Amino acid sequence: MVVVMAADATEADADNVVAVVEEAGGSAFVSRSVSRTIVGITGDMDRLAATLNLAGLPGVADVVRISVPYKLVSREHRRERSVIRVGGVPIGPDTLTVIAGPCAVETPEQTLEAAWMAKAAGASLLRGGAYKPRSSPYAFQGLGEAGLKILADVRAETGLPIVTEVVDKADVDLVASYADMLQVGTRNMQNFPLLQAVGGCGKPIMLKRGMSATIEEWLMAAEYIAQRGNLEIVLCERGIRTFERATRNTLDISAVPVAQRLSHLPVIVDPSHSGGRRDLVLPLSRAAIAVGADGIIVDVHPHPEVALCDGPQALIESDLRELASIAAHLSPLVGRVVTPAPAVAALR
Amino acid sequence: MVVVMAADATEADADNVVAVVEEAGGSAFVSRSVSRTIVGITGDMDRLAATLNLAGLPGVADVVRISVPYKLVSREHRRERSVIRVGGVPIGPDTLTVIAGPCAVETPEQTLEAAWMAKAAGASLLRGGAYKPRSSPYAFQGLGEAGLKILADVRAETGLPIVTEVVDKADVDLVASYADMLQVGTRNMQNFPLLQAVGGCGKPIMLKRGMSATIEEWLMAAEYIAQRGNLEIVLCERGIRTFERATRNTLDISAVPVAQRLSHLPVIVDPSHSGGRRDLVLPLSRAAIAVGADGIIVDVHPHPEVALCDGPQALIESDLRELASIAAHLSPLVGRVVTPAPAVAALR
Amino acid sequence: MVVVMAADATEADADNVVAVVEEAGGSAFVSRSVSRTIVGITGDMDRLAATLNLAGLPGVADVVRISVPYKLVSREHRRERSVIRVGGVPIGPDTLTVIAGPCAVETPEQTLEAAWMAKAAGASLLRGGAYKPRSSPYAFQGLGEAGLKILADVRAETGLPIVTEVVDKADVDLVASYADMLQVGTRNMQNFPLLQAVGGCGKPIMLKRGMSATIEEWLMAAEYIAQRGNLEIVLCERGIRTFERATRNTLDISAVPVAQRLSHLPVIVDPSHSGGRRDLVLPLSRAAIAVGADGIIVDVHPHPEVALCDGPQALIESDLRELASIAAHLSPLVGRVVTPAPAVAALR
Amino acid sequence: MVVVMAADATEADADNVVAVVEEAGGSAFVSRSVSRTIVGITGDMDRLAATLNLAGLPGVADVVRISVPYKLVSREHRRERSVIRVGGVPIGPDTLTVIAGPCAVETPEQTLEAAWMAKAAGASLLRGGAYKPRSSPYAFQGLGEAGLKILADVRAETGLPIVTEVVDKADVDLVASYADMLQVGTRNMQNFPLLQAVGGCGKPIMLKRGMSATIEEWLMAAEYIAQRGNLEIVLCERGIRTFERATRNTLDISAVPVAQRLSHLPVIVDPSHSGGRRDLVLPLSRAAIAVGADGIIVDVHPHPEVALCDGPQALIESDLRELASIAAHLSPLVGRVVTPAPAVAALR
Repeated sequence: MVVVMAADATEADADNVVAVVEEAGGSAFVSRSVSRTIVGITGDMDRLAATLNLAGLPGVADVVRISVPYKLVSREHRRERSVIRVGGVPIGPDTLTVIAGPCAVETPEQTLEAAWMAKAAGASLLRGGAYKPRSSPYAFQGLGEAGLKILADVRAETGLPIVTEVVDKADVDLVASYADMLQVGTRNMQNFPLLQAVGGCGKPIMLKRGMSATIEEWLMAAEYIAQRGNLEIVLCERGIRTFERATRNTLDISAVPVAQRLSHLPVIVDPSHSGGRRDLVLPLSRAAIAVGADGIIVDVHPHPEVALCDGPQALIESDLRELASIAAHLSPLVGRVVTPAPAVAALR
Repeated sequence: MVVVMAADATEADADNVVAVVEEAGGSAFVSRSVSRTIVGITGDMDRLAATLNLAGLPGVADVVRISVPYKLVSREHRRERSVIRVGGVPIGPDTLTVIAGPCAVETPEQTLEAAWMAKAAGASLLRGGAYKPRSSPYAFQGLGEAGLKILADVRAETGLPIVTEVVDKADVDLVASYADMLQVGTRNMQNFPLLQAVGGCGKPIMLKRGMSATIEEWLMAAEYIAQRGNLEIVLCERGIRTFERATRNTLDISAVPVAQRLSHLPVIVDPSHSGGRRDLVLPLSRAAIAVGADGIIVDVHPHPEVALCDGPQALIESDLRELASIAAHLSPLVGRVVTPAPAVAALR
Repeated sequence: MVVVMAADATEADADNVVAVVEEAGGSAFVSRSVSRTIVGITGDMDRLAATLNLAGLPGVADVVRISVPYKLVSREHRRERSVIRVGGVPIGPDTLTVIAGPCAVETPEQTLEAAWMAKAAGASLLRGGAYKPRSSPYAFQGLGEAGLKILADVRAETGLPIVTEVVDKADVDLVASYADMLQVGTRNMQNFPLLQAVGGCGKPIMLKRGMSATIEEWLMAAEYIAQRGNLEIVLCERGIRTFERATRNTLDISAVPVAQRLSHLPVIVDPSHSGGRRDLVLPLSRAAIAVGADGIIVDVHPHPEVALCDGPQALIESDLRELASIAAHLSPLVGRVVTPAPAVAALR
Repeated sequence: MVVVMAADATEADADNVVAVVEEAGGSAFVSRSVSRTIVGITGDMDRLAATLNLAGLPGVADVVRISVPYKLVSREHRRERSVIRVGGVPIGPDTLTVIAGPCAVETPEQTLEAAWMAKAAGASLLRGGAYKPRSSPYAFQGLGEAGLKILADVRAETGLPIVTEVVDKADVDLVASYADMLQVGTRNMQNFPLLQAVGGCGKPIMLKRGMSATIEEWLMAAEYIAQRGNLEIVLCERGIRTFERATRNTLDISAVPVAQRLSHLPVIVDPSHSGGRRDLVLPLSRAAIAVGADGIIVDVHPHPEVALCDGPQALIESDLRELASIAAHLSPLVGRVVTPAPAVAALR
């Protein structure tokens, strides 16, 4: 940490900063220049930051942190980029993993049909929501455990491991007993009790970026999970909230390389929810693969016009072959291979 | 709802919209003009919106909702503005209620001292956090139930009813057994299981606006609470996330009159967290009272330089009389009186 | 400036930074701690910042500027807050100046009628646009010089000095020959040739904040004007662009005290354009006065339903007395008096 | 246009809307449903929108525009996507055009060296600024005409046509006499006099998106140029302003397909200014090409550590071959070929 003193701070103000830091067990060194005085601080930064309020001391103009506030998920902690395995399917730096499925599980037929569509699109993992966080209390909230059972049946039938959302700490064990990977959604990125709960669930986690979270806050949310012993985390960029109204959110494509540079965790992209429009899913999938994402997650639905959730953005039959082709042709250009779907037998 | 057909939509496309709506039990009427066709829709809108996906039908350019997606909290449901009582203290259209206290409960002494400071500042309710949602897992997370007990002791001593945050659905009953009002924080505004849980807790709720939530989403979050039978809700504007970096958040002062026009619920302002700077608390408090807020909630701390949470924004001793004076002098100009603190005996 | 070296920077990297700075005529001092090395830099910062690219040197992690990038408009340059006089009417720390008038000058009758409305609302300055920057090339663009002549006639009739916008460098002299104050609008806040031109026009300038400009950028835009010798500048907060859609822009009320602390220039608020809704003008005017603004600027129109520009936000007859009353009653509470309108004779 | 009446609007209110519209020469038809009344409006929409203020009429809840506010630049005006030729070099739907060069022209040597670097990176057009809009009046503002002459010399030497910025209406003719394409920068996107001036300059225009402009506003700015008879416009997405601080701006990659769907004009991407970081230029270039951009424009500099402008984002020697390789390998996957650089002789 660097404490920058105000232009009119006295020598005593700087000495006071030093005294406060040293009393708390840290070290401080003062550098005086013609116009400003700066105090550098070393020691157990987390404890110092948690117990001292340096910005409130007299004469302090600014406190600048010079190391990142997360550890376990950082590249400094683990230099090599991680590979996370979901029911045996890898997500990591050498592969391009496609996750697809319906936004919400509605019926066994719809889910099975969507799973076959997902496979046709090159997917090796099946997504599908049994618990849906909805802005309106009057909107469809998901089938709950009945939906999880449908997903398990479809997994048995198709061989695709399951990624599904959990919205309530109380449901974590139940969801983990069915799912191969638990998703924490954008609205829950800073639901800290939920983060801690999934940190102890023993299954890999997909952590979506909060719609107004900075990349740093996203990594600190991942740190909450990691701190409970679970480093099997995949980050998912899904668009941020901006002034632009032509798309539901603004896909922050730069977040992929930025997060990959700061963290060893895989980073995937959700082109369906970021744009909120079917006509953008394929172009944004191309962009995501080309920028270097470790995977993409897309909505598919056999009959989007009657979907109970986010129909307008679901891919349909005719888009699937194109998506598979995009993944196959672009991946080699960024040094990856498309992760193959596991054989059905593998899960039986 | 109004469905606007695309310029090149066919007559059959519009007929199809009508058929889909009518099959779902709604009514639809087509208006054809020279350049566009529009289909107006009436019926049980929530059900229709939840089960139909009109935007996905062929030839549909846009679907425009013309009624608000919340009901119980709307002015259309209850024309008169509500008065919410917290331990007997009113928050509503005729009063200006000051809520003050430390960001986090740290010790009995600090909390009691802050409570007397709050009273000196004209507060009739005491705020203080026992459960703190923190961006970093390494930051102070609050004292938990021990903090609630401190708050209850301080209430007995000072007569000030307590407002305190709950961050976990599992803690709602415990927190409600101590608190006079439960706070749902900005990061949990769309934590729907928590909203539903506080909807059944039997105590009034302060719902902070999500830092990137639209006013409409905020009211829909309130609707989640109301739908569980709890209409004792106070909305709290606390700043939104924007590009400006001089303040921690951007106080959306316009949100006060806008939300009051749309909803019958009281709307208060948090000038401490929106600015994140002590020097802005008094000016923003003046703005909040003048714009017509039903109350303000401010951080006070006897020794902000050692505060475990948000010290830089806490008011100190010398600010208190000025805050009390501001409240007393501005309130009459907006047709209000400052809510007096309850007598100590009242709670014993 | 402080240069923070990367964790893995070598000693030679830091020495190189020192060498580069010293070669350019500055001084640099190195502070080495256990985990990081920091290089403090002093000298002619503007020249150093303009000619060196320290962030690009090997081993440099971050470059932190510790003094503000503007000078003439800063409180450090002039500690006392300035009073700007517009046709004899003061705008400054002891007064509350109301500026009112039609968004656009349309006809002599409409402008005169609006001027009398402005006076009834307590205004001492008349606003009105003869040159209108419009998002669409098909919208009404203003009357040009004919509009300026109407404004001059109305000034002669009512005694109100004129504030009017200039959008083109080529028009600055013409507009300055009619107007008492020139306005630079939000879209032109970083139109640097225009800023430099008005810096030499000899009339005071009202500089609106760009709709996505930080407060720092706003002050740097003012510095452009000041650098050409014109320190007669009034800053005008008019709302920033955010995700919220209930209002046209989000009034950043905190910007008033923040800018006043950083700069000696007066800061006023435009409650009409920030909200874009008539029903918000009075509440936001109250907030602006209470937060400590040096003035407000509002749209009035005798017949807003046929206004050629921004009719939805114009105050009408019945609002005027209330605005005058708000100004009169709130001003004393913030230590100000409402600036009286000049006598008609004063200008004749 | 559709006028949605308020829930409590009277029949007379709707009749009044009809009367106002008809008096202005338009047609209006009323649709009454159980809960709401809607008035559809047809006629000369631009004139009606410019002269009527329907939102201000009694009983009107909302006015919904159902056609786009731009014409000449829209796909409805010209269904086929346009090809713009710059000194003979095409930018359009079948090619991928790389534009590269230094942010600012500093010396003949630096510019020539950068031009050869640009060629090595696969560029067919040379960018370079002689007039620089800078946030600070104390920053390097460009060489002016001397810079234009350097560019012309370098064009003669390398064969690369020149793209350069104009910031002042008064300089348009001068810049057009040297340049092959004029750039209007992000801060000038709504500098309407400048837009109109370049609309008459006889050279193609690159219009950068304003950093807080919606896609619709961007197209309306293009319409300003087109309306003066110049449809040789290339749109350039260069990042928008959001809350995220890890990148200088947030590249809105979705804007490329969205703008291409709404307009027939080519859309290119600036990966250098959007990220503001050299390490993001290649990943973002890959994303831009893959999403379907018609070109990219990147900063190169022989010695970025001493660049007078935006050094931190300039590509260096070792990146160039990789950029050329990216362009060559990705283009065929999106149905394009890389535009070849013109032969030197071609320009002599």
